[in-house]
Amino acid sequence: MENAVTISVDALGGDKGPEVVLPGVEAALEQDHELEILLCGPADVVEPFAQNHERCTAVPCTEEVLMGEHPARAVRKKKDSSLVVGCRLVREGKAQGFFSAGSTGACLAAGTIIIGRIKGIIRPALCTILPMPKRPVVMCDVGANADCKPEYLVQFAQMADIFAEQVLEWKDPRIALLNIGSEDAKGSEFAQECHDLLKQKVPHFVGNGEGTDIAAGTFDIFVTDGFTGNVCIKTIEGTAGALFNALKGVFKSNIATMLAAVLVKSRLKALKKTVSSDTYGGAPLLGVKGACIVGHGASNETAIKNGILTASKTVRLHVSDLIAQTIDQDV
Amino acid sequence: MENAVTISVDALGGDKGPEVVLPGVEAALEQDHELEILLCGPADVVEPFAQNHERCTAVPCTEEVLMGEHPARAVRKKKDSSLVVGCRLVREGKAQGFFSAGSTGACLAAGTIIIGRIKGIIRPALCTILPMPKRPVVMCDVGANADCKPEYLVQFAQMADIFAEQVLEWKDPRIALLNIGSEDAKGSEFAQECHDLLKQKVPHFVGNGEGTDIAAGTFDIFVTDGFTGNVCIKTIEGTAGALFNALKGVFKSNIATMLAAVLVKSRLKALKKTVSSDTYGGAPLLGVKGACIVGHGASNETAIKNGILTASKTVRLHVSDLIAQTIDQDV
Repeated sequence: MENAVTISVDALGGDKGPEVVLPGVEAALEQDHELEILLCGPADVVEPFAQNHERCTAVPCTEEVLMGEHPARAVRKKKDSSLVVGCRLVREGKAQGFFSAGSTGACLAAGTIIIGRIKGIIRPALCTILPMPKRPVVMCDVGANADCKPEYLVQFAQMADIFAEQVLEWKDPRIALLNIGSEDAKGSEFAQECHDLLKQKVPHFVGNGEGTDIAAGTFDIFVTDGFTGNVCIKTIEGTAGALFNALKGVFKSNIATMLAAVLVKSRLKALKKTVSSDTYGGAPLLGVKGACIVGHGASNETAIKNGILTASKTVRLHVSDLIAQTIDQDV
Repeated sequence: MENAVTISVDALGGDKGPEVVLPGVEAALEQDHELEILLCGPADVVEPFAQNHERCTAVPCTEEVLMGEHPARAVRKKKDSSLVVGCRLVREGKAQGFFSAGSTGACLAAGTIIIGRIKGIIRPALCTILPMPKRPVVMCDVGANADCKPEYLVQFAQMADIFAEQVLEWKDPRIALLNIGSEDAKGSEFAQECHDLLKQKVPHFVGNGEGTDIAAGTFDIFVTDGFTGNVCIKTIEGTAGALFNALKGVFKSNIATMLAAVLVKSRLKALKKTVSSDTYGGAPLLGVKGACIVGHGASNETAIKNGILTASKTVRLHVSDLIAQTIDQDV
């Protein structure tokens, strides 16, 4: 599947900007020899890098979308920002996919407004791969749509299904609605309506799942509104982070515990790596024409590399075309 | 504050029933010498126990509310169940508080229908104390109301505020709205309306908090609708459980890691205890006349003891009266 693919990359994305994006791009180019990068950012950042790297072209931009800005307004106003230019390259067919670890809100706005929705998609949705100790789990939507209607969730389920089957190579993923009880009639009025519609329209839908089921790996895909999904992924991140921190404290207690730390270090590191969001590097915004992968603000070099590689894989597997062909336009 | 208080206890509550409830009651009676227990359950369970324990009176009941039953229907039908009888004792003034680790839904229904709402309270809410590595955090509502209006959340905030100040002895708790961004205008339409109303009505309200803020201990109290709150606490429980399990796997890898396990065992146990829900033993259903504490289905003996002691403390500190006096009835 290693055919040529071009990904535009926002050099300014992420809390650390070019400092981690450039090494991430370099690592992605080294790993994938059919990958071309269009690197968008300030001339003095992207030009020297492109000169020193094969298959990387500099796309100088004069503006930057900042973290605190109003997403849609920034995207409409800052037409020469690395984020907007990167998305425009996809719309114009110069790149097939886009990656940024910049402001999530601005990435979602740019993806939707500039790259544009696939015909029939009511709302593009952010689909994340949650790295869990037992196995990864897909959740969609995790923040693109704070206010949802039941029919949106049907499309979220259908898009996540395609992504999981194609990109993650999961056969017949089991899709659950994130709810507050496992029985059919549980939950808010909205959740009950979603349940009924998903049951009618989505063959891989298996019923309601609860918060405890996420880490347990009971289901492959959780479908939810972007508000609940976003609270959920941030709660997981916060809980895991706090526990690892507390664990660090445990190991630092005295000489005996420090010795213990040495003895488990490599395996603990492996566990931390398993549950690290860096493994996938970003969440695809499903439902836009072309691949659009949104990285975590706190992305490191590995996360950037993996986010770019997820973008190229999403392009090569024609996820957008498959969504366009199979999506239920009559929900 | 050790004045006499009577708590009715559902002997059948919890996944393990009397097997853990009875030792829990015994431990509570040992710890609090001014505590009287009215133990509701089958005669052959509660009578022999009451005969052998001072300050414990058997209240034989012939029915049981089962876990899968429709909550409100079960409460209306099974008038001689341990759950319904326990709540009726509070309504009749024979007990001042009630504790059960039975079906959460049925406890909420029984608390609301039988004990009854405080005048002016639109919806009683389940308020939990989340044990976090750094410090405990209060969240309200965590499941009593899947569908909420912004005015409910104002009362949830006011009630949780009183509970945290009185029972947990937190001075001027900082209250946040659980949302998907920290800026004022973030979130769903519902979240934005809640934010504006909380800002107007609740002096201790400080703004929006995110999922990552829960474990970080940025705020003392999170107020949210019962759907989001329930997903949130179950996600925390699932994530923490999965990580501790994975950690167990790490320590079991080989002889070196098993040695490490021995070296950190006591401190790891202490951490696990810190983040265990057994410490508080139950979530108060705020807004009903009298104390009503709902225990976790998986409660062990310690959790039952602590749940009963939380009930007696809630009674002694007149939380219900304070709620009745201070609640904003004009939201």
